[in-house]
Amino acid sequence: MVGYKFMGKAHSHAYKDVGMFFELDADVSMQAICGRDKDGVQAAAEKFGWSSYETDWQRLINRDDIDLIDVNAPSNAHKEIVLGAVKAGKHVFCEKPLALTLADAREMLQAAEQSGVKHAICFNYRFLPAVQLAKQILTDGQIGDIHHYRATYLQDWLADPDFPLAWRLNKEVAGSGSHGDLNAHCIDLARFLIGDFERVVGHSKTFVHKRPIPASSQGLTAVASDETGDVTVDDATSFLAEFKNGAMGTFEATRFAYGRKNYQTFEIYGSKGALRFNLERLNELEVYFKDDPPHLQGYRTILVTEGVHPYTANWWPPGHTIGYEHAFIHLVYEYIQSIVNGSDFAPNFYDGVQCQQVLEAVDQSIEKGAWVRVEEV
Amino acid sequence: MVGYKFMGKAHSHAYKDVGMFFELDADVSMQAICGRDKDGVQAAAEKFGWSSYETDWQRLINRDDIDLIDVNAPSNAHKEIVLGAVKAGKHVFCEKPLALTLADAREMLQAAEQSGVKHAICFNYRFLPAVQLAKQILTDGQIGDIHHYRATYLQDWLADPDFPLAWRLNKEVAGSGSHGDLNAHCIDLARFLIGDFERVVGHSKTFVHKRPIPASSQGLTAVASDETGDVTVDDATSFLAEFKNGAMGTFEATRFAYGRKNYQTFEIYGSKGALRFNLERLNELEVYFKDDPPHLQGYRTILVTEGVHPYTANWWPPGHTIGYEHAFIHLVYEYIQSIVNGSDFAPNFYDGVQCQQVLEAVDQSIEKGAWVRVEEV
Amino acid sequence: MVGYKFMGKAHSHAYKDVGMFFELDADVSMQAICGRDKDGVQAAAEKFGWSSYETDWQRLINRDDIDLIDVNAPSNAHKEIVLGAVKAGKHVFCEKPLALTLADAREMLQAAEQSGVKHAICFNYRFLPAVQLAKQILTDGQIGDIHHYRATYLQDWLADPDFPLAWRLNKEVAGSGSHGDLNAHCIDLARFLIGDFERVVGHSKTFVHKRPIPASSQGLTAVASDETGDVTVDDATSFLAEFKNGAMGTFEATRFAYGRKNYQTFEIYGSKGALRFNLERLNELEVYFKDDPPHLQGYRTILVTEGVHPYTANWWPPGHTIGYEHAFIHLVYEYIQSIVNGSDFAPNFYDGVQCQQVLEAVDQSIEKGAWVRVEEV
Amino acid sequence: MVGYKFMGKAHSHAYKDVGMFFELDADVSMQAICGRDKDGVQAAAEKFGWSSYETDWQRLINRDDIDLIDVNAPSNAHKEIVLGAVKAGKHVFCEKPLALTLADAREMLQAAEQSGVKHAICFNYRFLPAVQLAKQILTDGQIGDIHHYRATYLQDWLADPDFPLAWRLNKEVAGSGSHGDLNAHCIDLARFLIGDFERVVGHSKTFVHKRPIPASSQGLTAVASDETGDVTVDDATSFLAEFKNGAMGTFEATRFAYGRKNYQTFEIYGSKGALRFNLERLNELEVYFKDDPPHLQGYRTILVTEGVHPYTANWWPPGHTIGYEHAFIHLVYEYIQSIVNGSDFAPNFYDGVQCQQVLEAVDQSIEKGAWVRVEEV
Repeated sequence: MVGYKFMGKAHSHAYKDVGMFFELDADVSMQAICGRDKDGVQAAAEKFGWSSYETDWQRLINRDDIDLIDVNAPSNAHKEIVLGAVKAGKHVFCEKPLALTLADAREMLQAAEQSGVKHAICFNYRFLPAVQLAKQILTDGQIGDIHHYRATYLQDWLADPDFPLAWRLNKEVAGSGSHGDLNAHCIDLARFLIGDFERVVGHSKTFVHKRPIPASSQGLTAVASDETGDVTVDDATSFLAEFKNGAMGTFEATRFAYGRKNYQTFEIYGSKGALRFNLERLNELEVYFKDDPPHLQGYRTILVTEGVHPYTANWWPPGHTIGYEHAFIHLVYEYIQSIVNGSDFAPNFYDGVQCQQVLEAVDQSIEKGAWVRVEEV
Repeated sequence: MVGYKFMGKAHSHAYKDVGMFFELDADVSMQAICGRDKDGVQAAAEKFGWSSYETDWQRLINRDDIDLIDVNAPSNAHKEIVLGAVKAGKHVFCEKPLALTLADAREMLQAAEQSGVKHAICFNYRFLPAVQLAKQILTDGQIGDIHHYRATYLQDWLADPDFPLAWRLNKEVAGSGSHGDLNAHCIDLARFLIGDFERVVGHSKTFVHKRPIPASSQGLTAVASDETGDVTVDDATSFLAEFKNGAMGTFEATRFAYGRKNYQTFEIYGSKGALRFNLERLNELEVYFKDDPPHLQGYRTILVTEGVHPYTANWWPPGHTIGYEHAFIHLVYEYIQSIVNGSDFAPNFYDGVQCQQVLEAVDQSIEKGAWVRVEEV
Repeated sequence: MVGYKFMGKAHSHAYKDVGMFFELDADVSMQAICGRDKDGVQAAAEKFGWSSYETDWQRLINRDDIDLIDVNAPSNAHKEIVLGAVKAGKHVFCEKPLALTLADAREMLQAAEQSGVKHAICFNYRFLPAVQLAKQILTDGQIGDIHHYRATYLQDWLADPDFPLAWRLNKEVAGSGSHGDLNAHCIDLARFLIGDFERVVGHSKTFVHKRPIPASSQGLTAVASDETGDVTVDDATSFLAEFKNGAMGTFEATRFAYGRKNYQTFEIYGSKGALRFNLERLNELEVYFKDDPPHLQGYRTILVTEGVHPYTANWWPPGHTIGYEHAFIHLVYEYIQSIVNGSDFAPNFYDGVQCQQVLEAVDQSIEKGAWVRVEEV
Repeated sequence: MVGYKFMGKAHSHAYKDVGMFFELDADVSMQAICGRDKDGVQAAAEKFGWSSYETDWQRLINRDDIDLIDVNAPSNAHKEIVLGAVKAGKHVFCEKPLALTLADAREMLQAAEQSGVKHAICFNYRFLPAVQLAKQILTDGQIGDIHHYRATYLQDWLADPDFPLAWRLNKEVAGSGSHGDLNAHCIDLARFLIGDFERVVGHSKTFVHKRPIPASSQGLTAVASDETGDVTVDDATSFLAEFKNGAMGTFEATRFAYGRKNYQTFEIYGSKGALRFNLERLNELEVYFKDDPPHLQGYRTILVTEGVHPYTANWWPPGHTIGYEHAFIHLVYEYIQSIVNGSDFAPNFYDGVQCQQVLEAVDQSIEKGAWVRVEEV
């Protein structure tokens, strides 16, 4: 693994716990974790349960005792590491976004496909039981033809203008702001659930242009200093979409929505029913079926913790809910199984590229002030 | 009153009940109701409590015993009747939309202003206690500067493709579909709550192009026949907006959202808090304040039925909720008081024109595939 | 009508509006309202729309132009007026509680039955569309055999110890506190929905024993004075129940539950499903069916405003909600129809007696500290 | 650890993960797991991450390399193992119920106190962030004096009469049914949050008396056979309570509430506000404060995932929710720290005894049909 911060912890935890709850066809051994700061990565190795550590990712990807490289370093480092790992013949699991630009993402996909390794991208939310159940209901045709798709991903950690200038607010490191961080997830779920995008038109804002520079780099909880620096990414980006299947879509990502903490939602309205999901209540899925008896129609709140629901039989009895981190475990389970069994795995770099293409189409539409066809990006 | 269908009933009920619950500075007398079908209007007069009826609106507006004309005939008849009533020196209360085009609406506003009558438009939802409370909280500065405004108005009565071709689906009579019917309300509430629009870009669809022609004209519950006719209005229209104050907005209106019956919502996110309202739970308002103690922050669900809330002291004890029709009573109360006391009344024809301007800007943006400045329409 | 306060207003409104929304087989004429205070009752007559007024109920009940007497005077006056009205051969609609004691209630029932008039008691909540729908679902057998019934009726207007000593806190006038006022409604709904009580055991408290005497009698919003007086009724009463059908029940009534304004709820669990209702969201009913496909089971929130739902076709389109007062209109509609058509009407005095019997059984169980069989009271 | 089923897995997971997310003052080593079935326990050791296994608990508790014994064998085995472990000088962490009878529980408490080991009982729900926050709000006096406490613990896995006769339905193994399993948790939380019980009166039912005997013992999902056996425990038990502080309480436990999966709730109403918690939405806490401005009072839904909330800074960013299993990790963290640092730990065997006393008081009240003072049990 390359990277050992927030995402490094979440990924490490998945490798650590997956074998306890799932029957894997492989033995998983957490061989080595890699980071530039020796003290930091050594501490992380111990804390997270890795057998060894490296400070040079080039050394890591060339180790013979490693089959799979997990890349969750900052976004601007993804490309180089991924290309190296692929060249070294390792399977690669990369955090999103795949790269900072669509061109880079395409290059990485091509490299991975040519080398024949099993590539994956961390669109973890696909693997929540409620999202899997939504997919199943859609696949079963119970929602019918899709008319409307509405996604939001609302957070509030930047609404305070004194919140410091974190790395995520620097375009060179992060690539973009709420758009790449939050809309990326929404775009991937939309593609997963109802299919590809035809065209988009967007709107973007940076509400607070200068923020205090953190005294020391401690991530989101950094102490503010007297100096300020420029915010170079968007605080919020919303867009309208038309899907290839004719559905209308609206998407909104912001870090300025007070009271919304990790409020990723989707609503899907079709010719036979409707679905609604909210990440802040991730064990639940709301569904509506027009074929219920007329006097008994209403949104059902399904508590997605039954033995018959996806993945849940591996956890606890009904009603004993799971949390954010479990989606990583499910993803890692499926990914490892696909490596061992030679089956297809998605989401992979192809999905990363497709997502990037929509993101860039939105950016272009904002520049032009007009709709942009996704295929033309 | 001109008109005696759904809206005629709602307005009649307001005149009938307002004096029982509010202290008016005038005696309200329900003098006459007017409609072209003699049997229909006679029955309505009796049922709704009007002292007489007319079959010719010209006669009605020239009766000496009438001070106020309420116009809720089909949308394409508004202009002529309103201009006539204004010319006859009557106060005029007109259903929305004011007219089928912006030009017509402007003409009506000008005529009303020149004649000096008190004019009003039926944006009834402004007068719900929860909406009034939202306005008060915003005016008190408790939400701060506005960053995001999100509105939806979702219904599902057209999702069934066999639903017949009602008059609301005929562009010549109704003017437009979900856009003029539903977005109009959302636009007015947005203007009322946070201010005017700068620019918009929209998206529109008609999902079902042909529908059975009703055997007889019985409104929404008409029996379908074998013949079909063309739907000439939009089934759904969504748009992005930028407000003059810099806020970002998203708006969605549809009649194809299964399970949403009268789901008009707004969410407002500002620099100090947030608000959320849902018309299907019209006695409630959700609020979030960032100045609450950090460990105690959360959305409050206010049951807007206390004596301290707007209008509610005139009704029942706390927790004894009110319904859809009460907003009309509040509106009528305020309007009559403004006539008697010579005070300003809003929403009036000016608000009708402003709303129409935004609606048309959206229509133009859809044609162009690009953003349109509202002022330039 | 005898009485012209809160309930007088609610009942008057029902008579005033019922003909506008329902097809009655009788002409309803609001002939006279009666109260001891001449100015007060005269004002009420005018405000509420009564043609005349009386200050002596004896005169009222003997007027030839009156067929139906509505009694909503304070509880301790019910018996005398009702017996008089019945003797005069008038149909009688009485507010709950029927009387202050079970013995009195039985005497009133007997008198009414002997005279052959149509008698009714104002358990208005039976007539909410959501409650009627619950009844229909139960009758259709979709919940199966009942295992659990849970009712609460929570308010908070006494939680403030400075709230003045209203007439409802005086045992001689009101009969009892939260028990007779709130549990009475819960008991009636339980009987209506799942049947009669076998035995009960209760618990009761008065949390605040002395309260300021109001400066003037202005009902619940009275201004407090310096003097205090004794609270002689219960602030809260809860009880366990066993029903004749074997179901277990829990009931709780209180005026000390902060944040609950008119929170009357019932939950019913049976061998095939479950139901939940909350008066603060009176347009909704939650249902669960165990025969839904296993992966799709969940509580449905039905918005009870469709044309297929009880009474709602008489009101507005789907999603256009109704309020507290509408239940009275539905009750009055059914009651008048039953008078005209000679059909049975419930709830009537028999239901009032049955309810009183359960209330008294609970009181006896509190005295004894042990279970009491309802039949033995 | 003794035991390796559902609870064995949950406890094992806690030991495995605690060091990754919390800073412990001790190194935790998972030395050995014990069970009678050699194959079963060996597989569990491997799966859960234990270094060795034993098939004889006597051997386990006498191993020198072990300081702490975790007992989650079936309830009827608790006493013997705990007494042995205590005698061997081991710290003991025991699943609830401590024992099958109050007398046994008292004996175990006495033995543990005399030996001086650190004893703990697994009332895990105390350690949820939302429950800890509730405790903090109560301790801060923000709810005031308590008037009402309402607890429910509703499940539905027995509502199907064909569900097989699991060990939990056998009084000799499980001690009791819903009462000991579910009410035990509610009683402990009530004691933790608002204090001790004064007196109780209960009601209990077994709705289904005979169930199919499982073909093989596979826990809750066992396949049914043709033979049936007797259910010897309660399906549902509810009771009224009076607390020492004067508060009124209602408690309900059932396994027959369709649609409720793990619906443990508490509602607390005091002189200054109210609290509500629901285990099915365990990341949330609802609060109401009467000192909020009158027009802004309402229940707040706090998403208990902020850095300022109990334990949550050790997990993920705000809005990234946790699940059922996390409470065990928090408990194990606190327990291990208390062992290392010599601080007090609760809940311990004293709390186990107190809980057992209330459970037995309820049982006695059911036999008597009358209230029972808890102290007199």
